[in-house]
Amino acid sequence: MQTAEPPISYFMEQAVENRDLISLAAGLVDGDTFPVAEVRAAAEEVLGNPDAARAALQYGTTQGHAPLRDKIVAKVCQLDGIAPADAHLSADDVVVTTGSQQLLYLLGEVLFDPGDIVITEAPSYFVYHGILASLGVRTLTVPMDGDGLITDALDELLARLESAGELERVRLIYTVDYFQNPTGLSLSRRRREHLLDLVRRYSRRQRILILEDAAYRELRYEGDDVPSIKSLDADNRHVVLAMTFSKPLAPGLKTGYALMPRDLVGPVLRFKGNHDFGSNNFAQHLLDRLLANGIYERHVRRLCDAYRAKRDVFVTALRDEFSAASGVRLTRPKGGMYVWLEAPEGFETGMGSPFLKACLREGVLYVPGEFCYVEGGPRPTTQARLCFGVATTDQLREAARRLGRAARSAGLPRLSLPRMARCRG
Amino acid sequence: MQTAEPPISYFMEQAVENRDLISLAAGLVDGDTFPVAEVRAAAEEVLGNPDAARAALQYGTTQGHAPLRDKIVAKVCQLDGIAPADAHLSADDVVVTTGSQQLLYLLGEVLFDPGDIVITEAPSYFVYHGILASLGVRTLTVPMDGDGLITDALDELLARLESAGELERVRLIYTVDYFQNPTGLSLSRRRREHLLDLVRRYSRRQRILILEDAAYRELRYEGDDVPSIKSLDADNRHVVLAMTFSKPLAPGLKTGYALMPRDLVGPVLRFKGNHDFGSNNFAQHLLDRLLANGIYERHVRRLCDAYRAKRDVFVTALRDEFSAASGVRLTRPKGGMYVWLEAPEGFETGMGSPFLKACLREGVLYVPGEFCYVEGGPRPTTQARLCFGVATTDQLREAARRLGRAARSAGLPRLSLPRMARCRG
Repeated sequence: MQTAEPPISYFMEQAVENRDLISLAAGLVDGDTFPVAEVRAAAEEVLGNPDAARAALQYGTTQGHAPLRDKIVAKVCQLDGIAPADAHLSADDVVVTTGSQQLLYLLGEVLFDPGDIVITEAPSYFVYHGILASLGVRTLTVPMDGDGLITDALDELLARLESAGELERVRLIYTVDYFQNPTGLSLSRRRREHLLDLVRRYSRRQRILILEDAAYRELRYEGDDVPSIKSLDADNRHVVLAMTFSKPLAPGLKTGYALMPRDLVGPVLRFKGNHDFGSNNFAQHLLDRLLANGIYERHVRRLCDAYRAKRDVFVTALRDEFSAASGVRLTRPKGGMYVWLEAPEGFETGMGSPFLKACLREGVLYVPGEFCYVEGGPRPTTQARLCFGVATTDQLREAARRLGRAARSAGLPRLSLPRMARCRG
Repeated sequence: MQTAEPPISYFMEQAVENRDLISLAAGLVDGDTFPVAEVRAAAEEVLGNPDAARAALQYGTTQGHAPLRDKIVAKVCQLDGIAPADAHLSADDVVVTTGSQQLLYLLGEVLFDPGDIVITEAPSYFVYHGILASLGVRTLTVPMDGDGLITDALDELLARLESAGELERVRLIYTVDYFQNPTGLSLSRRRREHLLDLVRRYSRRQRILILEDAAYRELRYEGDDVPSIKSLDADNRHVVLAMTFSKPLAPGLKTGYALMPRDLVGPVLRFKGNHDFGSNNFAQHLLDRLLANGIYERHVRRLCDAYRAKRDVFVTALRDEFSAASGVRLTRPKGGMYVWLEAPEGFETGMGSPFLKACLREGVLYVPGEFCYVEGGPRPTTQARLCFGVATTDQLREAARRLGRAARSAGLPRLSLPRMARCRG
């Protein structure tokens, strides 16, 4: 049993250990935004009360702290503007996990046999690709556009698989449908409906599931929210909605959660029983306190203000460095933490590329786009994921300048004037 | 991919949810012993300092918080009275996990292919049997006596496997070598040396490992400590030592750790990267503060005082109920949390037995001994694991009385007089 070294490790180590570098690589979140005072107050509330302290420091259940699961259902339904009963959802449908990562892994263990097929967006979240590879799953991909996963292309792929007699191996469609990691793009409302319609339609002899990874949903900086696919799945049959407190609150509390069809809860818990029989209970009790009293919601609003400012600074600085004329295309995400850079044909961004080497010389790091594609499918080598989550606004401006210098030193023509020159002119 | 419902779930639910019952079943620990003030002070120390708070609330590394890993090595080596360098141990050999359970699972994923052989004590820790079953491992067993696993029997088993051409499928010997769950028995010093000698000798074409599960080591109530098998494995080649903060400190912090041969660290971390890329970082920062300044050691001493008192009360009360003449045999553990009850031939203790039903009527719960044996091997049905960890001393006295009443109502002859009667006499 082997699993490949995931590239995330390299980048996280660079970010954690090398203090000189400005890292746009690791999907860390901004430590300055952490709700330190709020967590401190929650810890006081829990540990200052003997009964609450005892409960928090004892073993919890494998499924997770029941009051927290109640609040999770209420929170998710509130985001979608629905009543839990209308969506057939209750705390029994929730599993709390060690970050949402653990849910992705557990669900894979439950659902997949080697040779089964999972379909993801291309590009997609590379850490999940690592899980799929380790479980022997065959990963197929569907391209994206500005509205997210192209569902017509999914329809064609499913039809081809059906013709080839392989439809029954399709277990799951994986989508990061809000401010996707790595592109920053979201799935449109119409496509959400189409996606759910497709899995219903192609679930002939076996059920096809949607794994809706909504880790970034709450980090929206502009525009109206769109309903989760889960909320459209009114009989709670086809969608596993995975979310986390890592991005909107603090990754150190390492707590994720999922709402899933009821019949999956038991199998997931049996695997989780083998893994750890329950995630960190103390953290769950702190989160329960933070979700009470609206503290969490207030924090998320502040967080969005902070990240919006970063996004604006970063996107502006990047546009100063890379004008349309340079041939570089950049997304302007409405939420989340990622800008996706597409360089012109022939301008390589991969591990051994002159651009990446120049970036390391200049002191800036990104994730080469090719890591975000599965092996075997199309794998462009001219893209980059730029995370603006962890750097300060000053660092983001500087990072954009370093990217620009590195690009030029690696041969990208200087077709835009830097902002200072324009201001002087 | 299927995994069986582990029986622990049923018992933990009974214990967590039914407040009337005195549960001797779940291996919970005593909430009254939790170091609430100490954890509160540690939380204040971490959250009251902006830099420390930021670090604790951020993502950690997959391997675990480096200062904590340093302290873990120092602590384990101190228990064994050795210098880390002499044992070839450093923080690089430590992996921090979500309880020691996660380590057991990860190691299994790394090491085992279906059909591989693991040898355990009989009886043994049933949750681990569940992991082995889920990974398709063939589990063989070796009996125990008062000195723990009978290593001569292991020698014979390994020789038989060699003759049968199956030695190369043997991956691991699993031993809970301090105050074993479920028997309370420990492996003697001489047998530790013999066990290590055996795995070295039988590691012919492939390495056989020892998984030394020392979860209860620090809970010693009498007698001299014995060295870990790990400390005898001077070139750090054959022993994975798994320990936890759940038993000696607080399960709610859900943090375990293992010291292992260096070449296993990478593979374990690759799997852990897929599972969760790092356990709860906040808890690790709290534990780091608790291990500094001797707080942890002081707590463990207090804890041993509390559990020793419980053990004494419980063992005395049980002996009042079950004299030698009753045919019931009981262990008197020198540490840990378990008393092992062996009833006379024919007196059943299993799930549907009159005794268990009578216990539930009386309001006391235990783990039927048969759960502690693997399927396919010898599986006595007349034993019971009694955990004195969570109940109060008053509850333990009452639990013993209820066990006695249940036993008599289920047909065990009343051959001993209850204590009150004797006092009156």
